[in-house]
Amino acid sequence: MKSLYAADIREHQPVDSLFLVSAKNQGVTKGGNSYLVLKLLDRTGEIEARIWERADDLGRGFERNDFVRVRGQATLFQGKVQVRVQDVTRVDEKNVAAEDFLPKSAFDPDVMFEEIQAILGSINDPHLRRLAEGFFADRELMELLKRAPGAKTIHHPYLSGLLEHTLSLLKLTLKVVENYRGIDIDLLLMGGFLHDIGKVYEFSFDRAVDYTDAGQLLGHLVMEVEMVNDKIAAIADFPEDLALRIKHMLVSHHGAYEFGSPKLPQTLEAVVLHALDDLDGKIQAIQNLPEKEPGSKWTAFHRAYGRSFYRNSSGESE
Amino acid sequence: MKSLYAADIREHQPVDSLFLVSAKNQGVTKGGNSYLVLKLLDRTGEIEARIWERADDLGRGFERNDFVRVRGQATLFQGKVQVRVQDVTRVDEKNVAAEDFLPKSAFDPDVMFEEIQAILGSINDPHLRRLAEGFFADRELMELLKRAPGAKTIHHPYLSGLLEHTLSLLKLTLKVVENYRGIDIDLLLMGGFLHDIGKVYEFSFDRAVDYTDAGQLLGHLVMEVEMVNDKIAAIADFPEDLALRIKHMLVSHHGAYEFGSPKLPQTLEAVVLHALDDLDGKIQAIQNLPEKEPGSKWTAFHRAYGRSFYRNSSGESE
Amino acid sequence: MKSLYAADIREHQPVDSLFLVSAKNQGVTKGGNSYLVLKLLDRTGEIEARIWERADDLGRGFERNDFVRVRGQATLFQGKVQVRVQDVTRVDEKNVAAEDFLPKSAFDPDVMFEEIQAILGSINDPHLRRLAEGFFADRELMELLKRAPGAKTIHHPYLSGLLEHTLSLLKLTLKVVENYRGIDIDLLLMGGFLHDIGKVYEFSFDRAVDYTDAGQLLGHLVMEVEMVNDKIAAIADFPEDLALRIKHMLVSHHGAYEFGSPKLPQTLEAVVLHALDDLDGKIQAIQNLPEKEPGSKWTAFHRAYGRSFYRNSSGESE
Amino acid sequence: MKSLYAADIREHQPVDSLFLVSAKNQGVTKGGNSYLVLKLLDRTGEIEARIWERADDLGRGFERNDFVRVRGQATLFQGKVQVRVQDVTRVDEKNVAAEDFLPKSAFDPDVMFEEIQAILGSINDPHLRRLAEGFFADRELMELLKRAPGAKTIHHPYLSGLLEHTLSLLKLTLKVVENYRGIDIDLLLMGGFLHDIGKVYEFSFDRAVDYTDAGQLLGHLVMEVEMVNDKIAAIADFPEDLALRIKHMLVSHHGAYEFGSPKLPQTLEAVVLHALDDLDGKIQAIQNLPEKEPGSKWTAFHRAYGRSFYRNSSGESE
Amino acid sequence: MKSLYAADIREHQPVDSLFLVSAKNQGVTKGGNSYLVLKLLDRTGEIEARIWERADDLGRGFERNDFVRVRGQATLFQGKVQVRVQDVTRVDEKNVAAEDFLPKSAFDPDVMFEEIQAILGSINDPHLRRLAEGFFADRELMELLKRAPGAKTIHHPYLSGLLEHTLSLLKLTLKVVENYRGIDIDLLLMGGFLHDIGKVYEFSFDRAVDYTDAGQLLGHLVMEVEMVNDKIAAIADFPEDLALRIKHMLVSHHGAYEFGSPKLPQTLEAVVLHALDDLDGKIQAIQNLPEKEPGSKWTAFHRAYGRSFYRNSSGESE
Amino acid sequence: MKSLYAADIREHQPVDSLFLVSAKNQGVTKGGNSYLVLKLLDRTGEIEARIWERADDLGRGFERNDFVRVRGQATLFQGKVQVRVQDVTRVDEKNVAAEDFLPKSAFDPDVMFEEIQAILGSINDPHLRRLAEGFFADRELMELLKRAPGAKTIHHPYLSGLLEHTLSLLKLTLKVVENYRGIDIDLLLMGGFLHDIGKVYEFSFDRAVDYTDAGQLLGHLVMEVEMVNDKIAAIADFPEDLALRIKHMLVSHHGAYEFGSPKLPQTLEAVVLHALDDLDGKIQAIQNLPEKEPGSKWTAFHRAYGRSFYRNSSGESE
Repeated sequence: MKSLYAADIREHQPVDSLFLVSAKNQGVTKGGNSYLVLKLLDRTGEIEARIWERADDLGRGFERNDFVRVRGQATLFQGKVQVRVQDVTRVDEKNVAAEDFLPKSAFDPDVMFEEIQAILGSINDPHLRRLAEGFFADRELMELLKRAPGAKTIHHPYLSGLLEHTLSLLKLTLKVVENYRGIDIDLLLMGGFLHDIGKVYEFSFDRAVDYTDAGQLLGHLVMEVEMVNDKIAAIADFPEDLALRIKHMLVSHHGAYEFGSPKLPQTLEAVVLHALDDLDGKIQAIQNLPEKEPGSKWTAFHRAYGRSFYRNSSGESE
Repeated sequence: MKSLYAADIREHQPVDSLFLVSAKNQGVTKGGNSYLVLKLLDRTGEIEARIWERADDLGRGFERNDFVRVRGQATLFQGKVQVRVQDVTRVDEKNVAAEDFLPKSAFDPDVMFEEIQAILGSINDPHLRRLAEGFFADRELMELLKRAPGAKTIHHPYLSGLLEHTLSLLKLTLKVVENYRGIDIDLLLMGGFLHDIGKVYEFSFDRAVDYTDAGQLLGHLVMEVEMVNDKIAAIADFPEDLALRIKHMLVSHHGAYEFGSPKLPQTLEAVVLHALDDLDGKIQAIQNLPEKEPGSKWTAFHRAYGRSFYRNSSGESE
Repeated sequence: MKSLYAADIREHQPVDSLFLVSAKNQGVTKGGNSYLVLKLLDRTGEIEARIWERADDLGRGFERNDFVRVRGQATLFQGKVQVRVQDVTRVDEKNVAAEDFLPKSAFDPDVMFEEIQAILGSINDPHLRRLAEGFFADRELMELLKRAPGAKTIHHPYLSGLLEHTLSLLKLTLKVVENYRGIDIDLLLMGGFLHDIGKVYEFSFDRAVDYTDAGQLLGHLVMEVEMVNDKIAAIADFPEDLALRIKHMLVSHHGAYEFGSPKLPQTLEAVVLHALDDLDGKIQAIQNLPEKEPGSKWTAFHRAYGRSFYRNSSGESE
Repeated sequence: MKSLYAADIREHQPVDSLFLVSAKNQGVTKGGNSYLVLKLLDRTGEIEARIWERADDLGRGFERNDFVRVRGQATLFQGKVQVRVQDVTRVDEKNVAAEDFLPKSAFDPDVMFEEIQAILGSINDPHLRRLAEGFFADRELMELLKRAPGAKTIHHPYLSGLLEHTLSLLKLTLKVVENYRGIDIDLLLMGGFLHDIGKVYEFSFDRAVDYTDAGQLLGHLVMEVEMVNDKIAAIADFPEDLALRIKHMLVSHHGAYEFGSPKLPQTLEAVVLHALDDLDGKIQAIQNLPEKEPGSKWTAFHRAYGRSFYRNSSGESE
Repeated sequence: MKSLYAADIREHQPVDSLFLVSAKNQGVTKGGNSYLVLKLLDRTGEIEARIWERADDLGRGFERNDFVRVRGQATLFQGKVQVRVQDVTRVDEKNVAAEDFLPKSAFDPDVMFEEIQAILGSINDPHLRRLAEGFFADRELMELLKRAPGAKTIHHPYLSGLLEHTLSLLKLTLKVVENYRGIDIDLLLMGGFLHDIGKVYEFSFDRAVDYTDAGQLLGHLVMEVEMVNDKIAAIADFPEDLALRIKHMLVSHHGAYEFGSPKLPQTLEAVVLHALDDLDGKIQAIQNLPEKEPGSKWTAFHRAYGRSFYRNSSGESE
Repeated sequence: MKSLYAADIREHQPVDSLFLVSAKNQGVTKGGNSYLVLKLLDRTGEIEARIWERADDLGRGFERNDFVRVRGQATLFQGKVQVRVQDVTRVDEKNVAAEDFLPKSAFDPDVMFEEIQAILGSINDPHLRRLAEGFFADRELMELLKRAPGAKTIHHPYLSGLLEHTLSLLKLTLKVVENYRGIDIDLLLMGGFLHDIGKVYEFSFDRAVDYTDAGQLLGHLVMEVEMVNDKIAAIADFPEDLALRIKHMLVSHHGAYEFGSPKLPQTLEAVVLHALDDLDGKIQAIQNLPEKEPGSKWTAFHRAYGRSFYRNSSGESE
């Protein structure tokens, strides 16, 4: 864990901490000396920094997007706090804790993962049980699942956000199916578990959440069909119709063509999965929107939903 | 209850039962005698009937859309069963049981109504309690609520369908709120209870479900705002912000402009209400679609949803 | 009325006038002293101001969104005029004339209001006459109507703009109905009078035009149905069908679902009202658009209409 | 004028009148003789006819889409009146009055045309006056204009319907411009006169209203630009900017891309022309819709507008 | 091959041929005897048939959708030719040639397939060569590819239509790439070969072209990604980026979300593939539309393209 | 040709070259002296310049949008190169080479024009040959055609871009028609030649590419119909149907109403023209997009196409 975060730096404070260099520009003083203007980023925000001395020298040691250890002094410059840098050295990514640079879920990923395993443990269908086991046995994938964000911006956009959303959705599913007959619960739980699992490869999330090339060109819906095919191939006699129903839930779970689903939900389980996925994401997103301005009952504008939200009063008090 | 339904009439069977005249056309035989071709309707379907004798005479006694008592004999004509009418007399609407002519819910409306009352009895907020009581005390309205259909065609399109949908939605709501913090349960239950209550006046449902003039020109969203205003006017000091939140849920519950909501859901409760309302209606509609053809895994095409559905296997066995 | 407006302040001019503080930010000089950067607003625009001396002290006396009396001197700073503040004190809203801070119609609201009353005086239908009288008798509402803006940005966005638009629409209506038979003139005039009256509560317009919570959550279409219901409740035997026709005009007058009408216009009068309302708004908006650049035949881009307009030549000479 | 119209033919009546053959099919009796089944059309509707004798012989003398003189006897067949044909002979189109086969306006086209001329006579701009004169001097075109329908189905779909709509629009325009300053009246009147004039070539309307090839491939908007170019070419020094404004009104008068306007209205006059054109068409269309069913307050469904209309009460009594 | 096709049956002709029973309904004569009304289908169309004798007996031997051998006599009935059946016996599907019951391409599938192989033989990239070889080596798949239709209705809707379209597209591709630099020809050819190959499993085409369950629930875009994954798995060191580019072409080749592509074309090759695929399909579809009516320059209405087409004159002479 | 371009100016370099003044703002120094801040533009980009001495004096001699000769010295200011101006004088437009200020095609317009002439020389139809000759004989128009840009921003947005696109499209057409029978090649070549020719008047392109008034109000589709009418008027007996087919291709070539085509393509040639035009534009646009950031495989975002593109590897190496 870092010793000092960007958002906590105050005037006059000595600085010695790790940052990600998000901008690096050269300037020249009136006296003809070059200096460097940096932006230093961590998960709490960004702070400006300047290197007035040995700028050429120090500047050779790192590039934009590198992690660096910065030593210096916080000062006021044109009314804003910035870091006057005395020394800066490149730090290898291995020596950096990603959660210092990306926001993360408030819940413990290992605990959430165990809860998910427990819920899927209730599945009765033997083939679906084996499919779940196939996924749980894939350590590398499960480690990614524990860390992946839920989205770039729309909802759960932080480390372990995917896990948090998956768990909440599974728990919601268990509640909802109590109200109806004729829903195939095992199938729906499997759909809930897998519906966004392609996001572990759709996004890169070591320094910042971004789309991978495959994520951009195929998307998580198609990618998770590929992942399911891989796991099913290892299970003897997996019923074709069952495989079809699972994959249909995955490709249709965005619920509409314009949201990138190549097929509309055409089974009861696919319809329910889409509705609950959408609802769980919206609830999380609305509850986590900042206020429009301090003290306002209205949230900031949510670009994807195209509106602000009027807070309920009970929400404010919590 | 009727003695014989249209769908049960077999060749050679004597007929003596009540029907709604849905078509009445005159023909002339080659011999120059006039005859009448009728369509007789009840909740199980339609059957053709012909009056060959005393057609002019009998025909004067009733018009299209009248209820009639028909006596005659079932015969085969061009390969189809039809009724050869011996006598037909107009029957006053008061002597007709609406459920003979409209399909109705499989559940007892009084039992469903009590369950709804019990759920709303859990509301803690004193003003919302009084609002619920105000509605329950309106006997005439509650009787309509018990009988009203849920829709003309899309979902719950049968007598007491509105009640069945309202109850199912409230029970679903109680499940869903267990999964989240910060939702105002009282408000959401009130929204669930009232979200479609305007349908009691939007539809006429004595012979067939149809739109009223007010239903067509204002719609149930606006009409139920008027109903809520009436009830709130009788409650001292009903908080303005609370009234606003209720009415917002009502006008926004279709979730999109193109579905006739003049406002998008902008509170957490309005978002949740829209999602659960939509889901509950879809589940009922999908589960009640007929098969595409006998034995098919696919349902008939659902016009409003724009697709057929692939039955889940557990659904088939139930 | 204010003594000096933002747009009229010139270099070297002494300043002593009322403004609305639209921004208030703190800075620190190189010497370590804090200063304040303000934005001062009135209906003619915005000007920057700085408090270099006693900044902490003076700054405690007011917040953003307060009205203040500012005394100081206009100076040039980085090529732009700004106010160097010597003293600033909070002024109570009661002592401020709203029209100093909001643009207003070029026409006298009392004169416009009398014209509207005269036009509605031509209504023959006794129930509609009584409805008009009911509205005119509501002094508080009529005072708001005289001051309310026509919109936040799209058309007539200034004080008394609603009145100006309503009068213009009524006069246009009187012209148009001369060309057709079979239009119910009384009904159409009533629709024209009431179609936007809900805007008096949809907007707040004491300092700047903004949406109220109710305006945002219900909208003026639904709100004016409520207002009409209130007035009709006080009239004995108001015909139900007539009430329905009025309310239908109100809820449908935006003409399309995507513009927030929950119902499309379905009566001749509703169709005509929508068309003339839309036309009157567009004419006002187009004629009041600024030029794209000085001397251009093209207007600035109108965001809601998605285009610029090519001025007609007669328009230029006027 | 015809002696007997299809809608007036009653059982037992002798028939001798002109019809358009809209269908001609051959049958063979059980006895092996061929017979012909015809559909005979005029402006009042269609009636079936059969030729039982000399069918081969008579059938050689005419084809589908020919006009014919039919002699025979009206008889009842399977409960419907049809004509039992004794003789049928082809009639040259020159000997047929088109208005017997197409519905026509209730107003005298010559009177309407004079009114239009009078209105355009009020134009002050010398170039626009000359343009109007150029059109009026084109006898052939003016004769077509007097007869052309306003549309195939949407509004004014009858002979001289275009003239009726044009006149109504011009009169409406004269009313509306009284309410506003800054509208170029001369330009707007010219736009009103020409906005649909391309329909004289877009439609063929000798037997039934149909699209011409040019109408289908170019449309009246582009065709009337061509017509205006032709007329302007004959006027010395016609100002280029004025020509541009006229042609812009023509190409933009449908008001939206999806209705076939390649440009949105971008002048005040184009905006007003589109609005009034649309309104005038809608009023005519709504007032002329048949009832949904006899006695209903609701009209039949209007396909292009996507709804039925609720009649106003004054409309019923007129 | 069948001895006699439905479209060739003339009055008085003896009939002895294979048909698909597309309808089977029972009737009862006035004399009380039952008879059967059948519809008999082959690739040239449908003909009605009646069994007047031994109807119950013969009727037990086959059902709707069975293939049958029908013996009887063609007669005229109410002016239309129909078959009076003397004997009918069920025929096993194995003894039926599918091309008798489904229209097929005018080109020899084996020849077309060889042409495709030759074109793909020009690929230089070693991995893509091996991928092509992998597909060619899959005999079962290649046999399906040779027979599969191009679509259910939109374009190339006949046996071997998929092959015909694929070949035409590949040849078009070879032409187009001559006009541009920088297109990866190997990749584009591979995309052209595979873009619709999932249709072999999306459709069933033994009796009539219909969607399979997998076709309906996943669609050929996703299915062919699965097929490519299978083939690539057998190739050592297939570059990941190359696999991504191929799969991207497949999922994006419908060019828009609303046509079921979960991703828009984002590589030059994907853009070109979509454009040429769309163009080749449209050319085939337009050229094969029937005339609107005999002799018309206009084609019948194409539902998916939403219009009729005006034939070019050279097309008519060919 | 200019002696020095904006993009080539380096620190310490003396400057003496022509520029377009794209911005001119006045500032005042702390010492109370006024100075001027200019933006100087040429086809390579923009550079800032400041006049510190004789600012008032020199500033009177030119305005924004003037061409000027600037003499001075390049210096570093706040880390960026700018010009410190010693002298600036207005230069008449006649003395300026437009290609110094607008980017231009990499190909010689005269060579491209000859290629186009050669391709159209292959037309066999005598009327189309004469039409082509009519256009080629219009020297003034042909000179404009050689210089006109292909678009303002979307594709080929540089001088002679229209010619480059036209030539590429014609060559592509020649390739594509080899693959199909039944396409009228002469007609399609004529359509390709003329489809964008209206752009010579739709755009002004002396200093920057901008829309003309006629371009904005009519658009190039309608304008080129007018141009074709003019040329056809000079050809005896030009077949009406042929003229119709040409003009249909022009008005429909954007392929959809929302892109400003008043008619959808309804001939085979119009369908092919739209597809190839769209494809040729897209290929050029994609290949000329800058990288998202240096070294990225992804291009910058293309606003009109709504996406970035993933470069193909062969493209990178070329």
